[in-house]
Amino acid sequence: MAGDIPDIVIGRLPIYLRALTHMAAEGESLTTSSHDLGRRLGISSAQIRKDLSHFGEFGKQGTGYNINYLFEQLRQILHLDQEWPVVLVGAGSIGHALAYYQGFKHRGFEIRWIFDNDPSKIGQDMNGMIVQDMSILAELIVDEGVQVAILAVPAAAAQQNTDLLVKAGIRSILSYAPINLAVPPEVHVRYTDPVVQLQRMTYYLD
Amino acid sequence: MAGDIPDIVIGRLPIYLRALTHMAAEGESLTTSSHDLGRRLGISSAQIRKDLSHFGEFGKQGTGYNINYLFEQLRQILHLDQEWPVVLVGAGSIGHALAYYQGFKHRGFEIRWIFDNDPSKIGQDMNGMIVQDMSILAELIVDEGVQVAILAVPAAAAQQNTDLLVKAGIRSILSYAPINLAVPPEVHVRYTDPVVQLQRMTYYLD
Repeated sequence: MAGDIPDIVIGRLPIYLRALTHMAAEGESLTTSSHDLGRRLGISSAQIRKDLSHFGEFGKQGTGYNINYLFEQLRQILHLDQEWPVVLVGAGSIGHALAYYQGFKHRGFEIRWIFDNDPSKIGQDMNGMIVQDMSILAELIVDEGVQVAILAVPAAAAQQNTDLLVKAGIRSILSYAPINLAVPPEVHVRYTDPVVQLQRMTYYLD
Repeated sequence: MAGDIPDIVIGRLPIYLRALTHMAAEGESLTTSSHDLGRRLGISSAQIRKDLSHFGEFGKQGTGYNINYLFEQLRQILHLDQEWPVVLVGAGSIGHALAYYQGFKHRGFEIRWIFDNDPSKIGQDMNGMIVQDMSILAELIVDEGVQVAILAVPAAAAQQNTDLLVKAGIRSILSYAPINLAVPPEVHVRYTDPVVQLQRMTYYLD
């Protein structure tokens, strides 16, 4: 099951999961195929079959995959059959947008706490949560056993905040700061930088 | 020069560019090496040398890369020696955060126009821009020759808006909608979905 499955394969599973959610919502069929999924995602059907084969047999030749079954299996593989409480660090405009973002619901995550070090932000209400002082962040992470954090602070503050999060026990960080972070090998970081994404595409423009 | 360089290689160039920007700002050295860069980015030095070799010779064995020179070369390769005007579709909380995001500056992009179809948002000021009615979006794209768009609308509206953008002449779309979009082969789409990034990491949590 686990072992040394390449991270790039793991990275495609949430994409499959998202497509299956849309298929289930559309309700047009109870089953799908690697061809269906591939066409929808712009990924080859061979790639999809190979990715899924790392985790077992999910479909039969000719009958395809049961959408709900494959959905549940992927949820379990990704440990999304539970809801992960998330701590959000940074209550600026990105933090604000994340606090109000509806897309976490039913997808395994809930932002439960928001922290900032700006006295003008501390005490503010954001979508029912009160922005708390960074000075009590580490204690909260330890007490609540939080493992997932979203970092929405300026680049200059990102490494320092990362060190604090990691020391307190955070194991997964999604960072909006436009800088690469140093973390120990047991901690995973993913980056969201809209400019990096845009720059990747202008290569193809004249 | 161009030819069939894998998109995954192109995707790493903005990461190198960002690291070089930080190195230049730190001002500790005029030169760097594939080892330096690799350590900072968690990418092997061999990978970095191989990626860069697609585009020519940027450094000499033993002396490494001149930071400013490599920075300028990568900027040119990615067509960032000009500023791309960007149209933002969607003035909700994500659109709002993007309108105020400081990170586009000096990195090749400027959001110049914001559109929404919600009458309560049209006419609002966002960071000096007035939210405009979607009904005039296509005309503006054609008139201004805009090629880059950011899509920050709900999943249900994303494909319809994409079709409109593509028809008007947009060639690069950064989408915040949690859904895969169908576009013709000459159009590039990149996706930003925080949940997909988080889900990719919970695989490694217990």
